[in-house]
Amino acid sequence: MNPPITGVVPPLVVPLKDGALDIPSLERHIDRMLEAGIHGLFVNGSSGEVAFSGDARRDQVLEEALRIVDGRIPVLAGVIDTETERVLAHMRRAEALGANAIVATAPFYALQGEAEVAEHFRILRQETGLPLFAYDIPVCVHWKLSNPLLLELGAEGVLQGVKDSSGDDVAFRWLALANERIGHPLSLLTGHEVVVDGAYMSGADGCVPGLGNIDPAAYVRQWNAYRAGDWAAVRAEQDRLADLMRIVQVKGVQGFGAGVGAFKAALKALGVFESNEMPRPVKALAGENYAWVEKVLREAGLDS
Amino acid sequence: MNPPITGVVPPLVVPLKDGALDIPSLERHIDRMLEAGIHGLFVNGSSGEVAFSGDARRDQVLEEALRIVDGRIPVLAGVIDTETERVLAHMRRAEALGANAIVATAPFYALQGEAEVAEHFRILRQETGLPLFAYDIPVCVHWKLSNPLLLELGAEGVLQGVKDSSGDDVAFRWLALANERIGHPLSLLTGHEVVVDGAYMSGADGCVPGLGNIDPAAYVRQWNAYRAGDWAAVRAEQDRLADLMRIVQVKGVQGFGAGVGAFKAALKALGVFESNEMPRPVKALAGENYAWVEKVLREAGLDS
Amino acid sequence: MNPPITGVVPPLVVPLKDGALDIPSLERHIDRMLEAGIHGLFVNGSSGEVAFSGDARRDQVLEEALRIVDGRIPVLAGVIDTETERVLAHMRRAEALGANAIVATAPFYALQGEAEVAEHFRILRQETGLPLFAYDIPVCVHWKLSNPLLLELGAEGVLQGVKDSSGDDVAFRWLALANERIGHPLSLLTGHEVVVDGAYMSGADGCVPGLGNIDPAAYVRQWNAYRAGDWAAVRAEQDRLADLMRIVQVKGVQGFGAGVGAFKAALKALGVFESNEMPRPVKALAGENYAWVEKVLREAGLDS
Amino acid sequence: MNPPITGVVPPLVVPLKDGALDIPSLERHIDRMLEAGIHGLFVNGSSGEVAFSGDARRDQVLEEALRIVDGRIPVLAGVIDTETERVLAHMRRAEALGANAIVATAPFYALQGEAEVAEHFRILRQETGLPLFAYDIPVCVHWKLSNPLLLELGAEGVLQGVKDSSGDDVAFRWLALANERIGHPLSLLTGHEVVVDGAYMSGADGCVPGLGNIDPAAYVRQWNAYRAGDWAAVRAEQDRLADLMRIVQVKGVQGFGAGVGAFKAALKALGVFESNEMPRPVKALAGENYAWVEKVLREAGLDS
Repeated sequence: MNPPITGVVPPLVVPLKDGALDIPSLERHIDRMLEAGIHGLFVNGSSGEVAFSGDARRDQVLEEALRIVDGRIPVLAGVIDTETERVLAHMRRAEALGANAIVATAPFYALQGEAEVAEHFRILRQETGLPLFAYDIPVCVHWKLSNPLLLELGAEGVLQGVKDSSGDDVAFRWLALANERIGHPLSLLTGHEVVVDGAYMSGADGCVPGLGNIDPAAYVRQWNAYRAGDWAAVRAEQDRLADLMRIVQVKGVQGFGAGVGAFKAALKALGVFESNEMPRPVKALAGENYAWVEKVLREAGLDS
Repeated sequence: MNPPITGVVPPLVVPLKDGALDIPSLERHIDRMLEAGIHGLFVNGSSGEVAFSGDARRDQVLEEALRIVDGRIPVLAGVIDTETERVLAHMRRAEALGANAIVATAPFYALQGEAEVAEHFRILRQETGLPLFAYDIPVCVHWKLSNPLLLELGAEGVLQGVKDSSGDDVAFRWLALANERIGHPLSLLTGHEVVVDGAYMSGADGCVPGLGNIDPAAYVRQWNAYRAGDWAAVRAEQDRLADLMRIVQVKGVQGFGAGVGAFKAALKALGVFESNEMPRPVKALAGENYAWVEKVLREAGLDS
Repeated sequence: MNPPITGVVPPLVVPLKDGALDIPSLERHIDRMLEAGIHGLFVNGSSGEVAFSGDARRDQVLEEALRIVDGRIPVLAGVIDTETERVLAHMRRAEALGANAIVATAPFYALQGEAEVAEHFRILRQETGLPLFAYDIPVCVHWKLSNPLLLELGAEGVLQGVKDSSGDDVAFRWLALANERIGHPLSLLTGHEVVVDGAYMSGADGCVPGLGNIDPAAYVRQWNAYRAGDWAAVRAEQDRLADLMRIVQVKGVQGFGAGVGAFKAALKALGVFESNEMPRPVKALAGENYAWVEKVLREAGLDS
Repeated sequence: MNPPITGVVPPLVVPLKDGALDIPSLERHIDRMLEAGIHGLFVNGSSGEVAFSGDARRDQVLEEALRIVDGRIPVLAGVIDTETERVLAHMRRAEALGANAIVATAPFYALQGEAEVAEHFRILRQETGLPLFAYDIPVCVHWKLSNPLLLELGAEGVLQGVKDSSGDDVAFRWLALANERIGHPLSLLTGHEVVVDGAYMSGADGCVPGLGNIDPAAYVRQWNAYRAGDWAAVRAEQDRLADLMRIVQVKGVQGFGAGVGAFKAALKALGVFESNEMPRPVKALAGENYAWVEKVLREAGLDS
């Protein structure tokens, strides 16, 4: 397989206009991140409203992203769905469209066990030649991928990486140490935005920060400082980004509506997105919540 | 709209053969339940492996069920998926195929709030003329539909019923009392198998018991006793059914694999299903687990 | 041992005045419940603010309750505390004061496993000759006592009963059926207030309803109807009590503050308690919340 | 008040012999940590089996610790109990015995809300002149102390510090940044063992690592490297300590029994404790689990 995917890999937030994908905004957005030096792009992830998207929309987002990126960096395609057959269908289409890697969660909605989750990833491996990342996001899937499972699937060649959005930093440290011991088969990407420096201390191979949609350059600077061993700079960038991440601390809204809602509001305020429209049934941030996002952007020196 | 849906409405468990829908087994199965006197059939529910099924399979199951039922009882179609647009797509196809009612959960995977869930059901209502049931199943959706929300949507005419698989019997009692107070807009169906008698005490309008796939006649007898006010008979049937439900107490398997796994094993043991095959990545019950199901069936006098 | 404890066994809510136990109110309260015909009294339970009480207060409440009850009905003493040695200390004092039975939870705060919980109850059994009830209240203890454990300890003679406040009515039905099968070693008391009729359908040997502090006569009537097989009366009493239980649906307060807060407000409104004072740091219900309690009491015909 | 408490503050693990406190082992243990250069000692914490200890044992442990430490470093006393009055009683005794600071959790067992938790800490503040640390340990207390609450109580002078065992590293980073903004009223100590380096990146003022009982010198070296800005050394120490922490990965035991069980086994293997006895009903690690602890110690170069 190709060289492992490392570095800053933002999960693409998508612009909408009257319910449709807003292509000019998408072009501005991806170009801005490419200019900032990102190392990969994760399409159709949780922040990319994959759960809100039918097959046509998923394919459209992936196609447009591949067209705009044009081979300059690897594009990872999320194939998130409830159970194995439905995930396989997404995977086949993503591979046909030209994705460079696949990102899949454990099955969800119907309850599963450790054996079923392992079998799920093995079935995916049998049907693709692309690198396969396990996406560990218990807040959505309500299942934590265990270290023994991830390491076994890594050693077998079933998995080539993990996108860790579990928030369990102790497990992540142990995973990184054990992965090293068995020859580093897994590329370990943290889904954190606010404590990426801690994940780098733990040996992360990169990050998938939603906030990287807003300030990709800062995450790239932080990555470069990490590669250079300049921990003081890693930390200083993180402190600034942690402050910036306060855009999600809006009132009366929670979860996806607050997180992705704030990212879209910020991208509109920065002139990247034409609209901060959200997918139904979620409302776009407005009024004092929108003003809060603008205020935090200004404090971070990000007003356009 | 039509008369409210009440009585015994089993959630259809589907027979597989080499990954395909096994039509002859499906015909035997539905015919057996119709002969037992069930009052409705819920297709593409959690027990009907909806989470494992793509559009084509969902449509096939619904079409075949509608063909076999042939208008004798109402067929309720589950339109379960992560978010609103995807649910709408399933709903439109189910309506086109001739379903008599729609059953939808709150959105899941991406996190939501009370306002988003209400908006979700209102959007569904705008696009269908069929009765709409809210499916409250926190073990899968990780969200509990609140009584104020259900009552508000019932009073508005957005919802015509609730399928309650929350396990929260206190909330269900209060829901039933409040529903009565506002004119009984909601048909309240319990998803319990083991304490349906308690739900009838609370005023349930019917039940959607997975175990009704195995012994539909007993649930029909219980319903008739309930309508006749013969509580001793309601209770005696329940004690027997609670014993029968022990088929799911298998070893080393949990959740969907144990529950639906045991239902399929029982239907095979009873000669209704040709195979107890499960959808990937779940394994069919075998060995001592299969023997356990057979033993419990015999104890309940259900060996064919 | 003595005959098993069955019937209506309210968990004593305690009146406070300037932080001290208000003895005249306590006498009025217990006398009122005795006149209503309750079959037992559970002292120092969760509703009896045991978690707020040091040794002296626990002993005072138990002593006063024993004095007032004066042997007319059995008094069960809660010995709730974090771990085994501390529970043992409470148990020894309760036995010395003359309690008729002991009620203990699994250990809490420090995490435990199935083996540790079993060992905990076995240690208690070794040090008392009194009947021992396991108190299953996961909302406080964050551990569910499993049916296999309860049945094993019942068969061994370690436990003589269970107070089930788990809200898991499916497990309770199965427990009741299995308890019957092994000779009914356990007296099974439900902690429900709102679906006691369902628990009676399941074969409960009695109830421990917090709401029994407010309307003990109704729970006694319901129990008598249950013993007489008059299920319609069981159900009608329950519907009325479920309506009455809406006193806890106050605004801006949750958990203990809402539940016990509403019980104390009702007892004050009924002229039984002089004050509805709550233990620090919890505030007594006031204003519109107090008015709500009064309104629900009036609707239930309970205004004094 | 005195200078803020910072640096390495291990939570004291206590040696038992036939159920009694083993004083000679305790002296060896505290002396060994003092020689390693620890900056404070946290007595009667979760790892110090506070939940298993009645008043007499709590007082004995605190008295002996104070005697052995003899004023060389501050001794923080845990006053952990279910509700306010009981916590106050422990606090008064701890202050009388000479503790240098108090550590209290939110109330637990009975459910609480944000207002009740705030009131709880304010009541404690009114009755002590000692520095007061809030102990945030949701795995035991089942409540997360929110950042707005902690910051408000810090600004008011109610709290002087936080011991964060929440595992929520994102909240911790935001807490540290906000604490700085308001003048650093709170001393922020992380309860992590495995990702202390990440907590230092976030600006922690120290750590309270259970594993500091086993290898206090390493945590002191890491602290000194942190103060010197030598992040590579901070990280290298952490990698070694993360490997050492694998002593808790024993089989068939979980939670307290595994964690503190492994610490006691290690201290016995190192010749510090005479016995690895655990408080009832928990069993001491033995057999292959004990051998595992010895193996990990050897790999870390810690065999005595």
